[in-house]
Amino acid sequence: MHDLGHKCGVFAVSDHTDAAELAYYGLYALQHRGQESAGIAGLIDGRIKSYVGMGLVGEVFKTDYFQNFKRARTAIAHTRYSTAGSSMLRNAQPITVDTRRGQISVAHNGNLTNGLALRQELEERGSIFQTTSDSEVILHLLAHPDYDHAEDPWVPALARLEGAFCYVGLTNDRLIAARDRHGYRPLSIGRKDGAWLIASETCAFDMIGAEYYDDVKPGELVSIKDGQLERRFFVEKRNLNTNLAHCVFEHVYFARPDSMIFGRSVHSSRTEMGKQLAREHPAQADVVVAVPDSGNAAALGYSMESGIPLDHGFVRNHYVGRSFIQPSQQQRAVAVKIKLNANRPVVEGKRVVVVDDSIIRGTTSRSRMARLWEAGAKEVHLRISCPPTRHACFFGIDFPSEDELIANQKTVEQIRDYLEVDSVGYLSEAGLLKAVNDGTSFCTACFSGKYRTPTPQGFSKLAAEC
Amino acid sequence: MHDLGHKCGVFAVSDHTDAAELAYYGLYALQHRGQESAGIAGLIDGRIKSYVGMGLVGEVFKTDYFQNFKRARTAIAHTRYSTAGSSMLRNAQPITVDTRRGQISVAHNGNLTNGLALRQELEERGSIFQTTSDSEVILHLLAHPDYDHAEDPWVPALARLEGAFCYVGLTNDRLIAARDRHGYRPLSIGRKDGAWLIASETCAFDMIGAEYYDDVKPGELVSIKDGQLERRFFVEKRNLNTNLAHCVFEHVYFARPDSMIFGRSVHSSRTEMGKQLAREHPAQADVVVAVPDSGNAAALGYSMESGIPLDHGFVRNHYVGRSFIQPSQQQRAVAVKIKLNANRPVVEGKRVVVVDDSIIRGTTSRSRMARLWEAGAKEVHLRISCPPTRHACFFGIDFPSEDELIANQKTVEQIRDYLEVDSVGYLSEAGLLKAVNDGTSFCTACFSGKYRTPTPQGFSKLAAEC
Amino acid sequence: MHDLGHKCGVFAVSDHTDAAELAYYGLYALQHRGQESAGIAGLIDGRIKSYVGMGLVGEVFKTDYFQNFKRARTAIAHTRYSTAGSSMLRNAQPITVDTRRGQISVAHNGNLTNGLALRQELEERGSIFQTTSDSEVILHLLAHPDYDHAEDPWVPALARLEGAFCYVGLTNDRLIAARDRHGYRPLSIGRKDGAWLIASETCAFDMIGAEYYDDVKPGELVSIKDGQLERRFFVEKRNLNTNLAHCVFEHVYFARPDSMIFGRSVHSSRTEMGKQLAREHPAQADVVVAVPDSGNAAALGYSMESGIPLDHGFVRNHYVGRSFIQPSQQQRAVAVKIKLNANRPVVEGKRVVVVDDSIIRGTTSRSRMARLWEAGAKEVHLRISCPPTRHACFFGIDFPSEDELIANQKTVEQIRDYLEVDSVGYLSEAGLLKAVNDGTSFCTACFSGKYRTPTPQGFSKLAAEC
Amino acid sequence: MHDLGHKCGVFAVSDHTDAAELAYYGLYALQHRGQESAGIAGLIDGRIKSYVGMGLVGEVFKTDYFQNFKRARTAIAHTRYSTAGSSMLRNAQPITVDTRRGQISVAHNGNLTNGLALRQELEERGSIFQTTSDSEVILHLLAHPDYDHAEDPWVPALARLEGAFCYVGLTNDRLIAARDRHGYRPLSIGRKDGAWLIASETCAFDMIGAEYYDDVKPGELVSIKDGQLERRFFVEKRNLNTNLAHCVFEHVYFARPDSMIFGRSVHSSRTEMGKQLAREHPAQADVVVAVPDSGNAAALGYSMESGIPLDHGFVRNHYVGRSFIQPSQQQRAVAVKIKLNANRPVVEGKRVVVVDDSIIRGTTSRSRMARLWEAGAKEVHLRISCPPTRHACFFGIDFPSEDELIANQKTVEQIRDYLEVDSVGYLSEAGLLKAVNDGTSFCTACFSGKYRTPTPQGFSKLAAEC
Repeated sequence: MHDLGHKCGVFAVSDHTDAAELAYYGLYALQHRGQESAGIAGLIDGRIKSYVGMGLVGEVFKTDYFQNFKRARTAIAHTRYSTAGSSMLRNAQPITVDTRRGQISVAHNGNLTNGLALRQELEERGSIFQTTSDSEVILHLLAHPDYDHAEDPWVPALARLEGAFCYVGLTNDRLIAARDRHGYRPLSIGRKDGAWLIASETCAFDMIGAEYYDDVKPGELVSIKDGQLERRFFVEKRNLNTNLAHCVFEHVYFARPDSMIFGRSVHSSRTEMGKQLAREHPAQADVVVAVPDSGNAAALGYSMESGIPLDHGFVRNHYVGRSFIQPSQQQRAVAVKIKLNANRPVVEGKRVVVVDDSIIRGTTSRSRMARLWEAGAKEVHLRISCPPTRHACFFGIDFPSEDELIANQKTVEQIRDYLEVDSVGYLSEAGLLKAVNDGTSFCTACFSGKYRTPTPQGFSKLAAEC
Repeated sequence: MHDLGHKCGVFAVSDHTDAAELAYYGLYALQHRGQESAGIAGLIDGRIKSYVGMGLVGEVFKTDYFQNFKRARTAIAHTRYSTAGSSMLRNAQPITVDTRRGQISVAHNGNLTNGLALRQELEERGSIFQTTSDSEVILHLLAHPDYDHAEDPWVPALARLEGAFCYVGLTNDRLIAARDRHGYRPLSIGRKDGAWLIASETCAFDMIGAEYYDDVKPGELVSIKDGQLERRFFVEKRNLNTNLAHCVFEHVYFARPDSMIFGRSVHSSRTEMGKQLAREHPAQADVVVAVPDSGNAAALGYSMESGIPLDHGFVRNHYVGRSFIQPSQQQRAVAVKIKLNANRPVVEGKRVVVVDDSIIRGTTSRSRMARLWEAGAKEVHLRISCPPTRHACFFGIDFPSEDELIANQKTVEQIRDYLEVDSVGYLSEAGLLKAVNDGTSFCTACFSGKYRTPTPQGFSKLAAEC
Repeated sequence: MHDLGHKCGVFAVSDHTDAAELAYYGLYALQHRGQESAGIAGLIDGRIKSYVGMGLVGEVFKTDYFQNFKRARTAIAHTRYSTAGSSMLRNAQPITVDTRRGQISVAHNGNLTNGLALRQELEERGSIFQTTSDSEVILHLLAHPDYDHAEDPWVPALARLEGAFCYVGLTNDRLIAARDRHGYRPLSIGRKDGAWLIASETCAFDMIGAEYYDDVKPGELVSIKDGQLERRFFVEKRNLNTNLAHCVFEHVYFARPDSMIFGRSVHSSRTEMGKQLAREHPAQADVVVAVPDSGNAAALGYSMESGIPLDHGFVRNHYVGRSFIQPSQQQRAVAVKIKLNANRPVVEGKRVVVVDDSIIRGTTSRSRMARLWEAGAKEVHLRISCPPTRHACFFGIDFPSEDELIANQKTVEQIRDYLEVDSVGYLSEAGLLKAVNDGTSFCTACFSGKYRTPTPQGFSKLAAEC
Repeated sequence: MHDLGHKCGVFAVSDHTDAAELAYYGLYALQHRGQESAGIAGLIDGRIKSYVGMGLVGEVFKTDYFQNFKRARTAIAHTRYSTAGSSMLRNAQPITVDTRRGQISVAHNGNLTNGLALRQELEERGSIFQTTSDSEVILHLLAHPDYDHAEDPWVPALARLEGAFCYVGLTNDRLIAARDRHGYRPLSIGRKDGAWLIASETCAFDMIGAEYYDDVKPGELVSIKDGQLERRFFVEKRNLNTNLAHCVFEHVYFARPDSMIFGRSVHSSRTEMGKQLAREHPAQADVVVAVPDSGNAAALGYSMESGIPLDHGFVRNHYVGRSFIQPSQQQRAVAVKIKLNANRPVVEGKRVVVVDDSIIRGTTSRSRMARLWEAGAKEVHLRISCPPTRHACFFGIDFPSEDELIANQKTVEQIRDYLEVDSVGYLSEAGLLKAVNDGTSFCTACFSGKYRTPTPQGFSKLAAEC
């Protein structure tokens, strides 16, 4: 329950009678990865048709979608986080274009670090850009006659890209999926009724009754045609399996708890984070409570390890959405309570350990801690299931700028004072890596500042939209 | 997370500068009690103006509300559950009328057992009815010259009513609150910045930063004018405190866990129900999981008492709303999973105790249990934190008809077979009453069929809308 | 093309397979009589169901209306002019109520002069009023046991009403139409495929392919049951055909030109007004132009009689509707031109006679005359096809208050100066009556101040809504 | 009042404080040229921002537009006719892109005959196409480094285009307007408060209080920067003023009557067409009526010349819009009458001359003639103010295919029989050219099939959208 920007989810289905329907439900399953626009492109009678709009899946897709796409057997889908208003509809994905190779449609999750450089190179050659999306960059590359002699033009085109990316693509005769060689973002392959599926998270397979088959490997290009799956690598063999950089924040916060990300249960990772946190930052307390829902699993782990009983210290209001009108200055504190109210009988007179997944700006956390004091807590000990978040992400997460990150500006003691709690304990980086059961393959740059791959020069938000 | 009909929430504020704003946020706090229509009536320059509409609070109230009602210092508000479409806007509350005593506006939670009889009596005298709401009955009674000689016409008018009711009312010069003498539904008094507040549940006070002051007593009429609270009883002294009938289902399911209902924490009641359930129906199991969010507290209690660890076995999708388009026949199972997906790592290979608050028709429960099997559960033991729900409610809850209630049609063994689980255990009535800490004052007729007050003859849905 | 308030149109159909559809198209035909709300009540399986909403017919009725009402064979319909916003939906008609006589639904065009007195009398007896509509008054009267011994309770109820009214009503077994004994507003009977129809204007019959049968006579109650039309008078014989008061403004402005109103073609009346105007106020001019569309027919008549050629001096923009955003102060003159632009080649260097139907406040006329000057007119002579509008209407037209009527405040010479034209000529009252071919039966009080029937004491807008 | 597709209107304003407002009102003035989408692109702080949407101007632009664009001093605007649904929003204009020359935004009225060929050429070079609009073609040309050495890249880019086009364009530092060398579509320059304006029709200048300055000449490129207007030709001198091809249908039907098109008043042209028609096809008749509003001016001319009096034989319903639900099979005739009802007193027992501007498929005309018979006409003589419409337009008008054009399939006698009228008379081509006062510069190919410039090979709707 955060104001952090998720950065898109992708989904695809090849050769299934109910493709239009499965794509729709697949987007519902990935809605947590992006709430600003949604779209589906489907293959109907050999032509790609698309349906995109601003808003939640339930707002974008009307019954005419089902009527118009019911004959589609192959489709790609996208749900997107964005910063802008109605004028940014052009950025909604999938983006579908006409090229000399026929139609191509692409949907993307990630962020290219050489996106701006590629745009400039392409513009120099005469390309025009209608969006600020990295999906448009790959389309320009694919359309170019340079790659005419390639066995598959996607191979040299993808090889030009640097940074984090997961693509699903559609042409007039096949479905494509590709993932950057560092494996920054998750992308998995599933099966249902003999059809092939692709999704950002495995929870989408569960929800539509499909089975997990494998991950798209880092550096891999998957091509599905006539029911056959072909897999090849678009990077040279010597570069494979070097310099992996799985985003650890997918496990900390982004992914749904019922997903398997990078081969590991997110729920299990989070429970382990909570246990590890209890070892690193024990507290003398009466009750452990979670900030719902992002802190649920870690709070459970903290309780298990510490033996301090878990209880439901906050009640979340499920009806607060975008139509909620912010209170006046006088009643401003109301807004936080309407969304998340402290449950007095649980915390009154108690020493409370409260577990959350992260602290970004600090303002929301501060307000929540105040709710616990108002509800009569005797002590408040805040535990965070990752290290202090101090650095920008250039690989697909929309953190605020570094000077807005509280941990970039203050020490842990200063944070404790600012939040007005008795103690603050962050999970260590080593503890976090232990919790995700892997000491080597994760990117932890948002905590450490140590980027595993080059960051863009002259980084611009313009080129950063997923 | 149910398809049971809640039956309305009421809220009121007297003499506060931000009355319009507080009423709006108060409705957000009570949104769980009714999602079909919402309305506010406020006193502006001595005249009552109202703003009502179909839908959620966030859909009904636009910025023009805040502009038009900002000078209101006194207001009543209502959120309502209903069965009908746009044509039923006339039933949205508060209902405001012109009478010989000036304007009167009323909002209601409950169900009159003599509503139909009173309508017929009033129609015989020449009254016309524009709604099917019990609020209109009290308005006709109040408007009648019969009560001209009464010190306060609300007293004889309220004395005519039988069944369950909580009213908030507004006239050109005062605010009213009244509660039936059996105390079926909750109604509380709060304070904020010197102003008086009324709400169906105390969570509304918490959320707007107000303090709980007292309950409106069964049989009591509260009148607030010029900042003064006057309390009197509209029933004869000998009838007070006899035959109380607090609705136990408020504790089982309806009320928010952060409310104090009938003087007791709902969360505490539910946790106790879970503990008691563990004593009555123990299980040899590896993990306890809740059906979120209604089973959360009881699952916690079950885990505490049994020592079996709690875990998050289901993940709820917060984006599924009214715009969700139901899947085709082929993909029907998808709908349940999209809303509530089993979390495989938690249940796979495990003996699972799953705790929910009630079983109504059984279809939803059956589908959820199937999700656990699909996710690899080894055994499934369903535990319900109340007795089998077998009988109609005539006092404000919209149960389906008795022949749709699975527990009215099947034995517990048959229910177990229908749900395809290893065991089903319902909390006993005695255990439930122990959990709510009171052996005498609760109505448990939906379990026992023993109604504490007369039920209507020729009961008609027409007269039953809250 | 005016900002005058029309005051409602009514339509009804009895016993036709396509009743729901005919009611919908009938409302389209009467949309010019009211644009603020629309509604239809139909008889389905012996029960009255209604569908009402704010806005134009095309905005209110969606496809679900056709689905839900397709089995209705009898229906009444209403389109309404109003001054208020969404909160006034309760005033939308038809109004449907439950009474001791079963359901009754009523729709109304007119204005009761004793509406307020009747409300007070009814309130004294205990009635409550939920709307400010005169339709609610008749419903309360009908519901009263006083009239139990009447052969038909509508007779004594209608006899209580004074002022202007046309009702269509629906009960569980018959359709009703009634018109006040002065015949202020039009109401006609039509036939189609053996079914009976009622409409405010005969153009509705034309448009749905029905035939005009007769007018509902002043003082008459028409009752249609089982396909049989029964006609009776609700006033005593000696009061019939005395003191007729047909609204002459229906011929001047309100009614559609293709309607027969009070037995005479509106288009013919208006053409005659133009001819008469040419005789009374000739001009030395080069061209006659109309203010479209309200001045079209009178301009034609003026041209015919004077021999001065007609031309199209203004072009109307058909796309300006309620969503038009008013210009800033700087560009304010733009708004008038966007709606109605002068056609330069027609007026440049010409002496122009411009014909309109009336001048209300004068501001719109002034702005239009300025457009002619800007387009190069050499002289501008304004001709108005009725006398100066000086007095309030208490019988169903929503004129502004008398001090806003320019002709109540200024002499014709002052009006000429204010409008900045070379001359202004109003049709005389005698000339107007000649044009409508009747010297005796018309109310011309808005010009003369001579009201043919009593006006209300303490006239209140509250009771005046049609 | 037709179902012919208009093909877009463009508007622009350079360096005016109220540019955002003027662009909005300019679009209202040109709404008749396209009702499917609307858009504005404005220069704010040196960056181009755009606001586009599906629907009428009044539906697309909300108050946030005025807030966000109030600092724009230069803007281009577009209103568009289209055939498709929500998925075609990408085709809405202006289209704004990033290129190596900075941002460019373009809006277009017309149709390129080499659009498809240019797309293929550009795609071969690697361009990707996101729309089916000719605006995208010019953008790709402009972006190409080929034209780096040109003094102004618009000159060689425009020189590549064949067919009909009028562009307004915006870059980060100037405003552009250009018109094809044949002058197919109108494009004019205006002035207001020292600022420069561009519009498809001069009526837009009138409506916003601006003055007409000049036409953009065929083959001319107008560039406005820092308040200075620069004019140059993008075609070689020897090709100027050869082979002009003004679209005569702009005078017959498309343009507003208050516009000056190709230097001549549309209203005057149409009145002359009516006079000429009376000379070519006289009739023994009692009354002349127009099909409103498209036949108004020609009917006036016919009446003037023939001496047969004009009258208003049809009444148009101004409330029928896109929300009108078509009647069932049984009541189908209703739809035509609701839109346009014959006025019985005008035509009953009369020999009627009815004047319209054109007959496309014939179905609508046939239905209208039937209305005259039903209203009692004794004879019906249809007169059309242009020759039979027999051939496709490749230059910006969306006629149906040739086999749907009634005049392509039937002789005039057969048309008379099909329409069930006494006579049909079409204006001759010579008469039409006389009426528009020019024998040489007009394209009349839709009548004659003689195209003045090459038509596209493999003409495809895909490349034809304006």
